[in-house]
Amino acid sequence: MISIKKAEIKDWDKIWPIVQEVFQSGTTYAYSPETNKEDAFEIWMTAPAATYVALSDENVAGTYYIKPNQPKLGSHVCNAGYMVSTAARSQGVGRAMCAHSLKEAVKLGFKAMQYNLVVVTNKYAIKLWQDMGFEIVGTLPRAFNHKELGLIDAHIMYQLLV
Amino acid sequence: MISIKKAEIKDWDKIWPIVQEVFQSGTTYAYSPETNKEDAFEIWMTAPAATYVALSDENVAGTYYIKPNQPKLGSHVCNAGYMVSTAARSQGVGRAMCAHSLKEAVKLGFKAMQYNLVVVTNKYAIKLWQDMGFEIVGTLPRAFNHKELGLIDAHIMYQLLV
Repeated sequence: MISIKKAEIKDWDKIWPIVQEVFQSGTTYAYSPETNKEDAFEIWMTAPAATYVALSDENVAGTYYIKPNQPKLGSHVCNAGYMVSTAARSQGVGRAMCAHSLKEAVKLGFKAMQYNLVVVTNKYAIKLWQDMGFEIVGTLPRAFNHKELGLIDAHIMYQLLV
Repeated sequence: MISIKKAEIKDWDKIWPIVQEVFQSGTTYAYSPETNKEDAFEIWMTAPAATYVALSDENVAGTYYIKPNQPKLGSHVCNAGYMVSTAARSQGVGRAMCAHSLKEAVKLGFKAMQYNLVVVTNKYAIKLWQDMGFEIVGTLPRAFNHKELGLIDAHIMYQLLV
């Protein structure tokens, strides 16, 4: 059973290992694979408009954030980022978080959601975002420096919410 | 005769009226039309990797910045933003700055340039960027809250540099 709630500061010690593992992989997020815990706290917990945790049987199985994607005149479009712990993969946690984020975004007043850099090798995620209503609006040639593959393309995905 | 050089702090008093006018218009940049001088300094002079001024007969006729568009694994793609003073419009200042920025970006080690939010009504700029080698890689529905027109579409434009 997956439940999703707003992340509190006390959740950070259980969120950080997930963030650390995903950043370290260097395959999906642009943040440095060497990002330390303090900087990651700023990125994941402080900078966003809101951060959430997904619990599976009381364990932190995933986390996501929502934030405005641009300043003022573009701030009605949000960006979101999701992570699932290795132990909780393929259990619908990503899908549950995406569905939750689309509702939360509307509650927070956003009118659209945009993913800025969806690495083309992240095929499972791309399929999932498409299932959830996102469209690939464009592809950026060689825009992501993949830790194993070097410079590869990345998609921009977008969905109007209202 | 247009010349372009790195902006120095002492240039800010002549750059600010241009930035203020463009932000206030609320038609091309997402930053708040009410952005004050101090915040604009941070946005235009401090945050970017480099800021430049275009001089026409010793007068500041335009300005532009270059900065990484994403963190670490996307930081080889730069973003740039250009402004031309009202008095210096239609004199090739924008074109000269764009050409300059493409060379400077390569010198600074960037491998591509991306514009994230080119408002569709900004037709003169879109044509110019296309002339300079940029392609529209996608269009974001209703992504810009235009001061006069409300929510309108915006393009993402992109060019590989090396």
